[in-house]
Amino acid sequence: MEDLVRDNERLDDLQCKGYYIIQNPDLFCFGMDAVLLADFATGKRKAHAIDLGTGTGVIPILMEAREKAEHFTGLEIQEVSADMARRSVLLNHLEDRIDIITGDICDASKRFGASSFSVITVNPPYMIQEHGLTNQSDAKTIARHEVLCSLEDILRESARILPHHGRFYMVHRPFRMSEILSKMHAAGLEPKRMRFVHPYVDREPTLILIEGLRGGKSGMTIENPLIIYESDGSYTQEMKIRHGF
Amino acid sequence: MEDLVRDNERLDDLQCKGYYIIQNPDLFCFGMDAVLLADFATGKRKAHAIDLGTGTGVIPILMEAREKAEHFTGLEIQEVSADMARRSVLLNHLEDRIDIITGDICDASKRFGASSFSVITVNPPYMIQEHGLTNQSDAKTIARHEVLCSLEDILRESARILPHHGRFYMVHRPFRMSEILSKMHAAGLEPKRMRFVHPYVDREPTLILIEGLRGGKSGMTIENPLIIYESDGSYTQEMKIRHGF
Repeated sequence: MEDLVRDNERLDDLQCKGYYIIQNPDLFCFGMDAVLLADFATGKRKAHAIDLGTGTGVIPILMEAREKAEHFTGLEIQEVSADMARRSVLLNHLEDRIDIITGDICDASKRFGASSFSVITVNPPYMIQEHGLTNQSDAKTIARHEVLCSLEDILRESARILPHHGRFYMVHRPFRMSEILSKMHAAGLEPKRMRFVHPYVDREPTLILIEGLRGGKSGMTIENPLIIYESDGSYTQEMKIRHGF
Repeated sequence: MEDLVRDNERLDDLQCKGYYIIQNPDLFCFGMDAVLLADFATGKRKAHAIDLGTGTGVIPILMEAREKAEHFTGLEIQEVSADMARRSVLLNHLEDRIDIITGDICDASKRFGASSFSVITVNPPYMIQEHGLTNQSDAKTIARHEVLCSLEDILRESARILPHHGRFYMVHRPFRMSEILSKMHAAGLEPKRMRFVHPYVDREPTLILIEGLRGGKSGMTIENPLIIYESDGSYTQEMKIRHGF
């Protein structure tokens, strides 16, 4: 299996069904946000799921291990990441279950057509384009800042490729929550469920997990807070049991 | 002081600066939501604060005890409640600090004019008009359902009577959060700060506390969750220390 791993890359154990993932720490490694999103999203039997901006493919691989969906697609604009994702799919013998496609989120509806997926996941760049940018072509910058696609692009394309009552799952930062909810509503992806992720129970959340329903009615549920650590710094029961930390 | 209290009314100790409040349990008694909102809202020195739909005036009375604002106004459409609120103001010798006005939120900007208050608090009816209504003229119904004013009415009038960078504070139910944030943004009351109130740490929130800034920029803070009870049913430290439960 090592012949699929190139120089500067490393092989990480996903602690899940024996799956591994190839990453290059010089580029971008997945974080807890991707793991929590993969768990927050649910794909019913026969669902076709797509992960927009999949990077090294961690979300489709984790969802394949946990969810009932029939097929997973990862769309990634950076060929170097898409290539790593493809090799991770091979490494885990998932080529019948996961396709990795090199392409731009902004063209998703043109490429895939209307109602082509019933579930979307996206762990998008969190930062607004102009905030503190240095090198716009850098792989980390593209993953973190809205250089190549904006929140509006993601929501517009997602609404187009989902059927009526298709599900949209996103992880993002709390500081943009109001904007996110307004823009999801405007795009026809009605916010239905949210969860806040707090490092400690007495601290502000660092992430939000959100589910939207294409063409859904107004009215939403906020779940109990997901707390990462106990006050002594150990993982909480939920993180250990449900998320495998 | 008892001569200010009528038949069917009772006198409750607010556990705060020796203040009392007159309530009629047949009509509507304030809940934890009003207490938490009064604490969440802040009025700077020289601020003029108004509480829209003040009921028995609990929010201005509690805020007078805790905040530095110069003057408080309570606006209430139901004369029977406004009358109780006025008597509570007298009972606590606060007639120089708090005015209770009988009137309709929908006419607030006509009555008070633009930029007439720097702080607004509102504990509005939570339920959308058509949901499960029985008696539309009942005092409890008016307090709980959007019979006499809608969320849009409240936001429109609030935006008009606040100056640029005036503060808007509201308590509401989580199921309407997405709608609330979108409509606040549309009304020019940018959501800037929120807190979720959970009965227990492992349960969904039952209330949201939200602060908007008239003419504010996008970008918000979610605070740590406010948890009411420990798992054994006793109040949490924060509820005991900060909120006096």
